[in-house]
Amino acid sequence: MTAVTYEHIKTCKQTGARLGIVHTPHGSFETPAFMPVGTQATVKTLSPEELKEVGAGIILSNTYHLWLRPGQDIIEEAGGLHKFMNWDRPILTDSGGFQVFSLSEFRKIEEEGVHFRHHLNGSKLFLSPEKAMEIQNSLGADIMMAFDECPPFPATREYMKASVERTSRWAERCLGAHARPADQALFGIIQGGEFEDLRAQSAKDLVSLDFPGYAIGGLSVGEPKDIMNRILEHTTPLLPQDKPRYLMGVGSPDSLIDGAIRGIDMFDCVLPTRIARNGTLMTSEGRLNIRNAKFERDFRPLDEKCSCHVCKTYSRAYIRHLIRADETFGIRLTSYHNLHFLLNLMEQVRDAIRHDRLGDFREEFFESYGFNKPNAKNF
Amino acid sequence: MTAVTYEHIKTCKQTGARLGIVHTPHGSFETPAFMPVGTQATVKTLSPEELKEVGAGIILSNTYHLWLRPGQDIIEEAGGLHKFMNWDRPILTDSGGFQVFSLSEFRKIEEEGVHFRHHLNGSKLFLSPEKAMEIQNSLGADIMMAFDECPPFPATREYMKASVERTSRWAERCLGAHARPADQALFGIIQGGEFEDLRAQSAKDLVSLDFPGYAIGGLSVGEPKDIMNRILEHTTPLLPQDKPRYLMGVGSPDSLIDGAIRGIDMFDCVLPTRIARNGTLMTSEGRLNIRNAKFERDFRPLDEKCSCHVCKTYSRAYIRHLIRADETFGIRLTSYHNLHFLLNLMEQVRDAIRHDRLGDFREEFFESYGFNKPNAKNF
Repeated sequence: MTAVTYEHIKTCKQTGARLGIVHTPHGSFETPAFMPVGTQATVKTLSPEELKEVGAGIILSNTYHLWLRPGQDIIEEAGGLHKFMNWDRPILTDSGGFQVFSLSEFRKIEEEGVHFRHHLNGSKLFLSPEKAMEIQNSLGADIMMAFDECPPFPATREYMKASVERTSRWAERCLGAHARPADQALFGIIQGGEFEDLRAQSAKDLVSLDFPGYAIGGLSVGEPKDIMNRILEHTTPLLPQDKPRYLMGVGSPDSLIDGAIRGIDMFDCVLPTRIARNGTLMTSEGRLNIRNAKFERDFRPLDEKCSCHVCKTYSRAYIRHLIRADETFGIRLTSYHNLHFLLNLMEQVRDAIRHDRLGDFREEFFESYGFNKPNAKNF
Repeated sequence: MTAVTYEHIKTCKQTGARLGIVHTPHGSFETPAFMPVGTQATVKTLSPEELKEVGAGIILSNTYHLWLRPGQDIIEEAGGLHKFMNWDRPILTDSGGFQVFSLSEFRKIEEEGVHFRHHLNGSKLFLSPEKAMEIQNSLGADIMMAFDECPPFPATREYMKASVERTSRWAERCLGAHARPADQALFGIIQGGEFEDLRAQSAKDLVSLDFPGYAIGGLSVGEPKDIMNRILEHTTPLLPQDKPRYLMGVGSPDSLIDGAIRGIDMFDCVLPTRIARNGTLMTSEGRLNIRNAKFERDFRPLDEKCSCHVCKTYSRAYIRHLIRADETFGIRLTSYHNLHFLLNLMEQVRDAIRHDRLGDFREEFFESYGFNKPNAKNF
């Protein structure tokens, strides 16, 4: 018995992209899906009600941050993360691994786990597969992630091979330590960097452990997009058809479409909310930065083709004023719009799969958004 | 013809407080009323929809800030402040005078107006009665304020007398410069500091000019509360019964009640939202600071007797976590709660007037909130 299952609806005849539904203890969401990131038990600036308005079916929260503050014991005592933050739809928590490797200092990786120092106060910490499971079991997300090593890009083949093998051993320990498999599904993470044979080895190891879902990690870490696409093309065919596939840390519109075309079902990224706080908006005609002087007297909506509450209500001139004046309400409006944009894009992607035209949709979208199209797949 | 009228409903038999309705071009609001402050065309962190949820009938915005950024011409081009910020209920704008005297540097006061320097970039600026009217006419608020001099506390009698006389001459110039009296009502401001005879002189001067409403300025600037109450008791009887009376810059719960008892109809203050951003909450049992360690595992609402959305939905532990983690959503929740608390308090005040028991209500409220009661009026 597993807490999370994947229901396949159809495959796009034009691209091979998958339309599906992921079922969890907190309800279902359609895939391909984008997950907004709520690092500290809040998707920055927005309320749960607003996340539903913009169409979020599932959100991600970060184990590393919640472990350090407020502490998973407090969240468990509150009745779990859903109740703590008032979000009754599905949640996925990462393992903390990525933050240990990207935020912390003085890392020492051992077979047992990773010793490191707190990125804010310098205190000594230790995270292991068992500890990552213990924390995630306390948080109570619908989907938990295995504790993996996240090697830097680029890494040597030798380093990467050892890392992949350790990640497989850690994945097995995670499965063994997971205390609530009937309530929470544990996904394995395939590593291997840009080395196709190591990706294959990692996939083989993890699939043999029979996880209810698989993530592809270690991409979108600075490598060119053609490497990401090549690795996806190589890796997703090695994964079971009846389990969800999650590409970690990817959220630019082109990569969401190109990932879906390569068989990915789930994505997450801080990109839409992070750039929003800097005044950068995603629109049907590409990016714009609302701080630009040319928007000073522009009383049009952020995106004239957008149907979101912000675009129906506020002008570029007003939002520019708020952002320049460092008003919190400004970053609420830009965060809301960007998340609506990406979640609406995923809805368009699902609709295009339904009508076997995701390839055509890609062409149209890339044209209007202003993307180059070097990585187009041959259909 | 005047844009704003006061409808008197009844006087509290126990205290003399007034229950009324102020009618404006953007609808009516009941008095005594508290006005949340939206300095830069936004009540910090909150949406217009949320302001309506917490019961705001009118908001205040600051002429000085909007003049400097984004500039009143942009707001006029947007169709006025209501449309610019998406607030369709009444708005009051101050004159900019208070900010000139509190924020700016190198002030030089002349009969013509005030020369000063921008509080952020140091540029040279000049504000006068005519300029303050021009800006406020562009902003288009329902209620505008006359440009007055705001003397420091304490000030000598000699200084205050000259200031009061100048403020009266400036008030007359404001009336003459006001371009849209049918759409916007201009209120006069009574000054005079703690000197009863100067307050009387100021009231007499301004009442003779027949403004559609009167404000009492220069209080809550550092003087003891008994001085404020004494000045109010002395001044409000000098004002016409059929015009609204506005006590500027006052927002602590005790002063709202004590002001209403002394015949005040309108109040404004940044207090509820400013302390909210620091984690300080107003509750039925007095103030609490949510950063306090004792709330770490407190899963009760901010105020167990409060019916607001925040108290119905979130725990002290969660809000404490958000505030400590510098999450914007935390100050949204605390700002929302504090404004709800004060606006709900005003509703209770109006209800108490309706039932001729505002004196009793004062006793009960001061007891539960933990206020001392030295300034109780004899009923």
